[in-house]
Amino acid sequence: MKIAIDVMGGDMGSKELIKGAVLAAEKYGYKIVLFGKKEEIEKTLSELNSKADIEVRHTDVVIEMHDNARDVLKAKKESSMSLALTAAANGECDAVVSTGNSGALITGATLLVKRIDGVLRPAFAPVLPSKNGAVVLLDAGANVEVKPEYLAQFGEMGAVYAEKVLGKANARVGLVSNGKEEHKGTDLTREAKAMLEKSGLNFLGYIEGNQIMLGDADVVVCDGFTGNVILKSLEGMSKLITGKIKTMLTANPVRIFGSLFILNGIKKFKKEFDSKQYGGAIILGVKAPVIKAHGNADSVAFSVAVHQAANAVEGKICEIFAEKFSKKEEE
Amino acid sequence: MKIAIDVMGGDMGSKELIKGAVLAAEKYGYKIVLFGKKEEIEKTLSELNSKADIEVRHTDVVIEMHDNARDVLKAKKESSMSLALTAAANGECDAVVSTGNSGALITGATLLVKRIDGVLRPAFAPVLPSKNGAVVLLDAGANVEVKPEYLAQFGEMGAVYAEKVLGKANARVGLVSNGKEEHKGTDLTREAKAMLEKSGLNFLGYIEGNQIMLGDADVVVCDGFTGNVILKSLEGMSKLITGKIKTMLTANPVRIFGSLFILNGIKKFKKEFDSKQYGGAIILGVKAPVIKAHGNADSVAFSVAVHQAANAVEGKICEIFAEKFSKKEEE
Repeated sequence: MKIAIDVMGGDMGSKELIKGAVLAAEKYGYKIVLFGKKEEIEKTLSELNSKADIEVRHTDVVIEMHDNARDVLKAKKESSMSLALTAAANGECDAVVSTGNSGALITGATLLVKRIDGVLRPAFAPVLPSKNGAVVLLDAGANVEVKPEYLAQFGEMGAVYAEKVLGKANARVGLVSNGKEEHKGTDLTREAKAMLEKSGLNFLGYIEGNQIMLGDADVVVCDGFTGNVILKSLEGMSKLITGKIKTMLTANPVRIFGSLFILNGIKKFKKEFDSKQYGGAIILGVKAPVIKAHGNADSVAFSVAVHQAANAVEGKICEIFAEKFSKKEEE
Repeated sequence: MKIAIDVMGGDMGSKELIKGAVLAAEKYGYKIVLFGKKEEIEKTLSELNSKADIEVRHTDVVIEMHDNARDVLKAKKESSMSLALTAAANGECDAVVSTGNSGALITGATLLVKRIDGVLRPAFAPVLPSKNGAVVLLDAGANVEVKPEYLAQFGEMGAVYAEKVLGKANARVGLVSNGKEEHKGTDLTREAKAMLEKSGLNFLGYIEGNQIMLGDADVVVCDGFTGNVILKSLEGMSKLITGKIKTMLTANPVRIFGSLFILNGIKKFKKEFDSKQYGGAIILGVKAPVIKAHGNADSVAFSVAVHQAANAVEGKICEIFAEKFSKKEEE
């Protein structure tokens, strides 16, 4: 197991990411290749004084958040992200983890690591917290305009991921709609629903927005426009609520006193709603697991994302997709 | 000012709704017509012993939540909802408030109260709480398949509502997309964006999901599929969080003790995230304000929805739409 890690581009600086990579390497024994500024990386590694198996590949080119997604292929093909993706593409590494620009990572994953034969479109699949634990949402932004057969395949890929990485056998798959009844949805969702009903998946039919956080489905399927809006809307609310709770508890000395008695409850509450507990978003349907870790991941959160990448490799999800979908093409 | 109120169909029973109607009538001096079971209504009214100006119209036909939306026109045209809408359609009442089946209310508003000339499609417009106060989201479910010009007009209607009812002059209008950049969105959103840029509105361009709850826009424009999913996703999260906070604070005696010191903070926090503080969702673009109040509205929340209906009448939003959009047709 060898994981390519892009240590440039996190909001917290590369040091946190290097620490997280070392944490994962030490805990699980993975081999790690770090892509970024050699001097910075070696300085942090020597501070950490780790005995983990870590290689360093130098580059000082970074894909910035405002860069065009296609820069990963051309203008910045020597960037840490491009080099990490290339290491997975040529088989040197088994998976990639980056906190960088999502658009560039999706483009790079699709065009460098490349689509698995039979996969119609790779999907961007974040893992969300819910009342019933982890829920995988796909697509959350890789494909804004989709066809019914893409949605049906997202359901199949999501179910494999839920089973092999999230440990949810016979995962419940729901298709996002504006109501549960047959006549609801769009032409797109109605056709996708008909396909999913015949897929052999544990398909629940349409689910509504409120069911996502309640954890009524393990796999939530939608087009990339809708998925992005869901993901960001929930993130916005989560951020707002966290801020409001903090303000509320520190508003005056009486409340500060009272909050001392519930501190561990609040910590647990915050953790339950922190999607970083499940790692990052995985790009499903390309030839190696590519993980977009949260930009604000600290070392612990980043080590979880590295572990998630390794779990996807060990769960052989790419091999399963290759077998599942290429067979279908032959039929 | 005379408001038609359907008192059948709330989750809390008609008694809460009758109480809420009486509250509004007493507080603001509105005339009220209640549609529902005469015996039930009169029993509650005599208990309340109110001197408000209240008429009662008897019917025992109810549109149930599982009924087909079109039943409001045919199979159940004697229902409390149909009769209330008819009272607005024939000019007897100025506005309608109901907690009933949203689909039926939208269908009934469109086909009984009728579209204002020049309005392309009426929109379902809930008001959400945000970091910056009330935000109107439209469309949230009346129009699943839309055209760019519908979205542009939703922006115009939303801005009028925000100004006249929410008191937000020069309301900031945002169009929901999967990113802020020019190339983001779909063909639909790109065309709508171009139209909104020329509209003379205070148009912010694309906004992302996380900006909704942060209150970056006063008017959030999207198609009815996306809007329904946003609304329900946020409702689901809100419900989950409220439940989790309660569980967290009552988990053990130490926390219960601590929570005593922050009780008023928690109450305020809950209220801030309660969309009922702004009334219900308004159906914009029909000839009289029609309000869908929350199914779980208690008497106070329901009185707010009645007040919201009256504010829409006093703000002359229907007259403004008629002038604004019929002029456009002539051009």
